[in-house]
Amino acid sequence: MADNPATADLNAAVANPRADIAAFDELEKKLFALRYAIDEIGSLGPVIDPVKATEERGEACSVLEEQRIRAICAPEVGPLLERLAAQPELVGKTRMRQIRVLGRDRASLVDVPAEEQAAFSRLTVEANDVWRRAKAGNDWASFEPYVDRIVAALRHMAEAKKPGADPYDVWLDEYEHGTGRSFYDPFFEQVKDCVVPLLADCMASRHKPSHAVVDGTFDEARQWALADDLMELEGVDKDALWVGRTEHPFTGGPSVGFVLIASHVYPDNVLSNVFSMLHEGGHTLYEQNVDPAYRFTSLKGGTSMGMHEAQSRFFENIVGRSEAFAGPLLERLRGRFPGQFGRVTPHQLYLAENCAEPCLIRCDADELTYPLHILVRYEIEQLLFSGEAKASDIPRLWAEKYKGYLGIDVPDDASGALQDTHWSDGSFGYFPTYALGSAIGAQLKNAMVAGGMDFDGACASGDLAPVREWLRERVWRWGRAKDTDELLREATGSSFDASHYTDYLARKFSAIYQL
Amino acid sequence: MADNPATADLNAAVANPRADIAAFDELEKKLFALRYAIDEIGSLGPVIDPVKATEERGEACSVLEEQRIRAICAPEVGPLLERLAAQPELVGKTRMRQIRVLGRDRASLVDVPAEEQAAFSRLTVEANDVWRRAKAGNDWASFEPYVDRIVAALRHMAEAKKPGADPYDVWLDEYEHGTGRSFYDPFFEQVKDCVVPLLADCMASRHKPSHAVVDGTFDEARQWALADDLMELEGVDKDALWVGRTEHPFTGGPSVGFVLIASHVYPDNVLSNVFSMLHEGGHTLYEQNVDPAYRFTSLKGGTSMGMHEAQSRFFENIVGRSEAFAGPLLERLRGRFPGQFGRVTPHQLYLAENCAEPCLIRCDADELTYPLHILVRYEIEQLLFSGEAKASDIPRLWAEKYKGYLGIDVPDDASGALQDTHWSDGSFGYFPTYALGSAIGAQLKNAMVAGGMDFDGACASGDLAPVREWLRERVWRWGRAKDTDELLREATGSSFDASHYTDYLARKFSAIYQL
Repeated sequence: MADNPATADLNAAVANPRADIAAFDELEKKLFALRYAIDEIGSLGPVIDPVKATEERGEACSVLEEQRIRAICAPEVGPLLERLAAQPELVGKTRMRQIRVLGRDRASLVDVPAEEQAAFSRLTVEANDVWRRAKAGNDWASFEPYVDRIVAALRHMAEAKKPGADPYDVWLDEYEHGTGRSFYDPFFEQVKDCVVPLLADCMASRHKPSHAVVDGTFDEARQWALADDLMELEGVDKDALWVGRTEHPFTGGPSVGFVLIASHVYPDNVLSNVFSMLHEGGHTLYEQNVDPAYRFTSLKGGTSMGMHEAQSRFFENIVGRSEAFAGPLLERLRGRFPGQFGRVTPHQLYLAENCAEPCLIRCDADELTYPLHILVRYEIEQLLFSGEAKASDIPRLWAEKYKGYLGIDVPDDASGALQDTHWSDGSFGYFPTYALGSAIGAQLKNAMVAGGMDFDGACASGDLAPVREWLRERVWRWGRAKDTDELLREATGSSFDASHYTDYLARKFSAIYQL
Repeated sequence: MADNPATADLNAAVANPRADIAAFDELEKKLFALRYAIDEIGSLGPVIDPVKATEERGEACSVLEEQRIRAICAPEVGPLLERLAAQPELVGKTRMRQIRVLGRDRASLVDVPAEEQAAFSRLTVEANDVWRRAKAGNDWASFEPYVDRIVAALRHMAEAKKPGADPYDVWLDEYEHGTGRSFYDPFFEQVKDCVVPLLADCMASRHKPSHAVVDGTFDEARQWALADDLMELEGVDKDALWVGRTEHPFTGGPSVGFVLIASHVYPDNVLSNVFSMLHEGGHTLYEQNVDPAYRFTSLKGGTSMGMHEAQSRFFENIVGRSEAFAGPLLERLRGRFPGQFGRVTPHQLYLAENCAEPCLIRCDADELTYPLHILVRYEIEQLLFSGEAKASDIPRLWAEKYKGYLGIDVPDDASGALQDTHWSDGSFGYFPTYALGSAIGAQLKNAMVAGGMDFDGACASGDLAPVREWLRERVWRWGRAKDTDELLREATGSSFDASHYTDYLARKFSAIYQL
């Protein structure tokens, strides 16, 4: 008991709201510290840890995560949250929001037995290891049984969380609160109806943009300096940022004051660096601009995967690959590579950034074909969860769908169903948030313009302050205090509407390909 | 209760030794994970964290440390350790050692009320901040009251830990188990009797070594490459090492598989880089070579401050500044700076490394004068704890003792009593371990030679494997499983004996200065 004074306080506090509040605040501080540790250790791991660090890091993170789950799921916490929620005037507005969010976190954990969660965690650690080797060796067969086992485990956990509910809906909702198949089905239908024929038209067009102006070899040290320039251009707070190096770019870090971007540079592909940094910079802006009052609470961080991806893909594509922004971007490229970019025009750069071309690898996809990669995964996940397909069907399904939607042949599983790490991590239901985020970004941009912002002017001037301020005020600062739907309604005047996205894609690519 | 199943297990386990063992193992895992987090966050902080990370990092570390102390001090843990200690055959040898070490950790924490520890922690955070500005502004007066407050708080805590004991003895024992004034007084007396006249003779000698051969300007990138060469030469495991950059070199990191060295390079002082790296490499070898079986237990890490400093100063001085090692070292210097070192001889380098010269700053001191800097601090700390001096006396005492022992005038407090961070951190009783470590190193070297090792041959060949293997077998692998005295007796055949050190200094510097 003395190991956990918060628990003792809880028991003593049934008739004492102030003690309840103190116990709640202490629980939040404890959760903050454990998350801080898990996030710092977890996100720095792949960037700086020496190779022999792996086993101890894994053990430390799993024990810390266990402590975090125990603290949230302690039986006293449920009644505590209920008592506090019944006294909104005493508890105050911010704390009421914390209680709501923490209550939801608790609900998603408390009904699955700890042993089952631990077993699932061990299964995914093993699966991830097998997947890594399977991808390297183009060996689907070795990974296949893990997919079936993971889906079965996720179905079982979904039943514990929401008895009787569709298990895939449970996991879609887990990654994006308020969604499910009834949300995503019409969204993807609309995307498919727009993008599949649009892409076919682009491919048939005689007016294909060229990327010749960005071809060449680019010194790595100068590319890192360019990455730094881009963070400045985007408006990221460098005093709250650390940039490291890794193969697969990501944003992490433990706190509002310490966001970590890990990225890469390739000598033969300077745009990969540019758009990776702009993308991760979007995630970074979101994390850095959460209300400082939320720093030590459950309200810290972005409100959902979709809203987070909305920020990153907004700065990567809607700002980053716009014609207006090509001017400031070209200036930065010229600053570091005057020889290569001295004679390139902004319009040439814009066209080079927007060559739509079906490819096998999601991470290499352009803005137009990207959602089709997600669609393939969404449809296969549904079939697995409904029992209409098994893991052994995936290679065939993958080939059929890539042929059908993107018009290309899949030569092997390494560049097919083995390309992504997500399934090996157990993250079924996560992929759709990537497409959703792209679509939310388009809706946000239209709201900015409708509200009177000179969006293109801001992009063309290289001063994105009006864009940042708009997002900071309406999205970023709220952290997890408001859900995606609430933020969207307040910021844009309506709930999510995919038409903004399909209209945006249709208009942009029709113009580029002169359809 | 559910937040802490270990506690529940403890209560149920009074009559069940196997459940006791399981509860103990779980406690050790929890403590491992919390220490891992505190060590990683704490040691990476000054190296990579952006400036705005400070507040959240501080909060996270303090909450994690509070969790750690609570877990150790939980009232059930005392009886648990007692029950287990009574069943050595069931518990096993390694676990018995864990129980002894964890019991000692607990004893040093459990008698000081948590509020008092927290208040002391806040006081030192504030004092450290004030000290930083006081040092920059050469303003002793602003820092002075904190010294008195910290000493008073330490005296009060010492009384809680060991009622009636001399408070300075309590803190000396805290940093180096088994020591106290009765241990250090004769040690420092012996050091003083040797070094003070020896230094005077050196200063009066007509045969002063020259450091002209190492003067010059050295490219920073090449110096970092040299640092890497030196880690290889010393035999540090680079697969379990990360090297970062900082102003004041230190060794940290969370685990056996992940040791962190933070160091600096100065363009005008290549030897500072060389000996900083060899020093931190010594700490690193100790951490990396603890028995892997201890990784997740209280037995991880070095057994004491003195034994840790013995390893670092051994590789810095007894190996690093030896005449035999000047050959391999010169080879590395030539590899990176062929222009500067092409015509230098090993003997010239050896002399350049060993210019004894009284200076104001402890961190810049040579091997001979170093212990005198420690002596000054030891004597002042004693006076403060006995009440014979107050903080306001320190500048005067400092000037008197630097004049008396080192023969130099102290021009200001910034290069006097404000130079070190330790007192602002509350680390009274820590300084003496630096001198003790140097002395232990000399005793270890003599034992190697007495045991038949060709120590100079190993140094001259650049293959330090025999030296490392000797230390790994007798010191490093034991982690905290054996105390300094036990290790020394087993490794050298006798308890600590300062004569090895004073003889070593006398012989070495008499030869260099041709006394």
